[in-house]
Amino acid sequence: MDADDLRAARAALRATTPLVHCLTNTVVQTITANALLAAGAAPAMVDAPEEAADFAAVASAVLVNVGTVHARTAEAMRRAARSAVAAGTPWVLDPVAVGGLVYRTELATELLEHRPAVVRGNASEVMALAGAGGGGRGVDSTAGADAAAPAAAELARRTGGVVAVSGEVDLVTDGRRTVRVGGGSALLTRTTGAGCALGALVAAYVAATGNAFTGAVAAHAHVALAAEVAADLADGPGTFAPAWLDALDALDGDSLARADLREHR
Amino acid sequence: MDADDLRAARAALRATTPLVHCLTNTVVQTITANALLAAGAAPAMVDAPEEAADFAAVASAVLVNVGTVHARTAEAMRRAARSAVAAGTPWVLDPVAVGGLVYRTELATELLEHRPAVVRGNASEVMALAGAGGGGRGVDSTAGADAAAPAAAELARRTGGVVAVSGEVDLVTDGRRTVRVGGGSALLTRTTGAGCALGALVAAYVAATGNAFTGAVAAHAHVALAAEVAADLADGPGTFAPAWLDALDALDGDSLARADLREHR
Amino acid sequence: MDADDLRAARAALRATTPLVHCLTNTVVQTITANALLAAGAAPAMVDAPEEAADFAAVASAVLVNVGTVHARTAEAMRRAARSAVAAGTPWVLDPVAVGGLVYRTELATELLEHRPAVVRGNASEVMALAGAGGGGRGVDSTAGADAAAPAAAELARRTGGVVAVSGEVDLVTDGRRTVRVGGGSALLTRTTGAGCALGALVAAYVAATGNAFTGAVAAHAHVALAAEVAADLADGPGTFAPAWLDALDALDGDSLARADLREHR
Repeated sequence: MDADDLRAARAALRATTPLVHCLTNTVVQTITANALLAAGAAPAMVDAPEEAADFAAVASAVLVNVGTVHARTAEAMRRAARSAVAAGTPWVLDPVAVGGLVYRTELATELLEHRPAVVRGNASEVMALAGAGGGGRGVDSTAGADAAAPAAAELARRTGGVVAVSGEVDLVTDGRRTVRVGGGSALLTRTTGAGCALGALVAAYVAATGNAFTGAVAAHAHVALAAEVAADLADGPGTFAPAWLDALDALDGDSLARADLREHR
Repeated sequence: MDADDLRAARAALRATTPLVHCLTNTVVQTITANALLAAGAAPAMVDAPEEAADFAAVASAVLVNVGTVHARTAEAMRRAARSAVAAGTPWVLDPVAVGGLVYRTELATELLEHRPAVVRGNASEVMALAGAGGGGRGVDSTAGADAAAPAAAELARRTGGVVAVSGEVDLVTDGRRTVRVGGGSALLTRTTGAGCALGALVAAYVAATGNAFTGAVAAHAHVALAAEVAADLADGPGTFAPAWLDALDALDGDSLARADLREHR
Repeated sequence: MDADDLRAARAALRATTPLVHCLTNTVVQTITANALLAAGAAPAMVDAPEEAADFAAVASAVLVNVGTVHARTAEAMRRAARSAVAAGTPWVLDPVAVGGLVYRTELATELLEHRPAVVRGNASEVMALAGAGGGGRGVDSTAGADAAAPAAAELARRTGGVVAVSGEVDLVTDGRRTVRVGGGSALLTRTTGAGCALGALVAAYVAATGNAFTGAVAAHAHVALAAEVAADLADGPGTFAPAWLDALDALDGDSLARADLREHR
């Protein structure tokens, strides 16, 4: 991963306008759709069991986020994940609050069998999903991203995909190599759905680049850099959100290429 | 339709504060409610089957938007549409993504039997609902509004109501006369729910004016003009949305009367 | 209740970051979560029946808002309320549109048996829940808060908790003493979810202070004062919402201590 990969990823997203099928929690659907639109992707939120498989088959990528999952949407998620795999479409799993709650932990564990291209969560969630303990208070993480590095690498090897851990410094690994993405702003944690929207942007970038690792890193870098721009403009967490969407839109390839990446093999 | 009709429509909306019962998708409920409040109407989002019929009977107008429909909300929509018709209350159908997905296409086709006062969609959706092909990628349209003009006119004659097609230039027809509404901003397509909120404003204006054609045109003009104001103030799609709500609120009858309308009989 | 109580309440909220489990309507989940985050609390929106009881038991407080309730979420609300009571966790009931609709009125009446620490609604809703008539148009109230004073006091004595009535001047009573909270801005009624977010902030403050009366008053004062700041900065209802979130964040104990309170015993 270098600056050219990031520049190419940004160009690919703009050129392809990937359609991201989001089965996500109802708290963050709006900001997720707006973040995708701002970055240059197209959102669609189809979560009826009757429709999820058909739509996943025509989408560029699928996001499954279990934040407010219940029986109907769980069934839609199963069908969407299966359909995505059958169609060769990449899908991303965001295991919100997994570890603390039995129902969604069992669902996320079951969905892992469909081998998501990327799992994106915080340290507690990734550790819990990897079976390495953890478990936070709802959407909070009680640990930094690096605490989850071994669990993330193990989980990535198990799924054959990529695992991304959000924190003050984000971590993206495929089980062999690891990139840390610095920067960002604490205001991202004061805006509901910024992390969930990041999951959707990962899906968009994976579709655009055709590469789970490059896509995950590019999405994290995009979100972090836009957050820095927005934090300079905002007067607080309320004005941060619209400024962040503006910055997601405005950020070009040369700006993305200046992301703070550190790679370790 | 002339400037005086628009001025009178704006005054009627402010004078009557129509209560719009919205059965709409979960992605856009917030901006739909805020757009109605900003324009001077009152929103209510009641989508339990146990309550939908009772509420539709006391509302000023009903909006049915199938964006994230599933079995429970489909049943609520059926009951609300039936109840609206029985009460003589106008109702608006927004056939989001109809054409591309079987389940909602069958539902929207079934709901047409309750003869909506207005059908509002993009070209692909209107063509699909009219049985004239079409079918986009989720909420995107792959065609301009004029491509749907014959299908829209045919559909309007079939329902006995009005059909509105959103595009760069919007088109409103009752099957005999057609008004095109120009203006607006491309930022409307970069903000999730702007089109869905337009559907709710159509319902509000139809209730306020007592006329489906006048109401549909006034709502389209209101949205387009507010978008122009907001586009001048915004730094991107994030700051556009709050500026658009401000402009929906501020727009008065004299401003609405300056809308770019072109009528053809 | 005096200035020192308010200063202490603000400090307690910041020091404890209470986790508020919100079972609330889908229209307002985003602004509710953002208002909690802005004020210094932590939101979680878990509304599956399979998870609601477990999560209520670990949360600092629970909010039940029946705005878009249906069969599944009603069952989750029952389980969450029961679990909160069993765990000694305070819970808040927001009876949105109760009185006008049979289904939710029966549910809210049933939930009263679990003795919410606070009931927060407008005058129509509180009067309807107390069995004193009332009944508005959806979320609107057709009466000022003082019209509900006798019903609120009677309801508070019945539940053994606190009842808060929102209006131009808000009213908080435990059946013996009553505090009226002045200030605020009419723009709060032009922003969907401001009242619902207030219910969540009541839950947060009750958890932080360990006192239902103090917590309810502090939350109402916090919302009103932040609204005054935001109204000065906003150009309309659209820019009001982000400015209000900024102000919820910025408001400190000394500012809260200047709230317009009038106490009557």
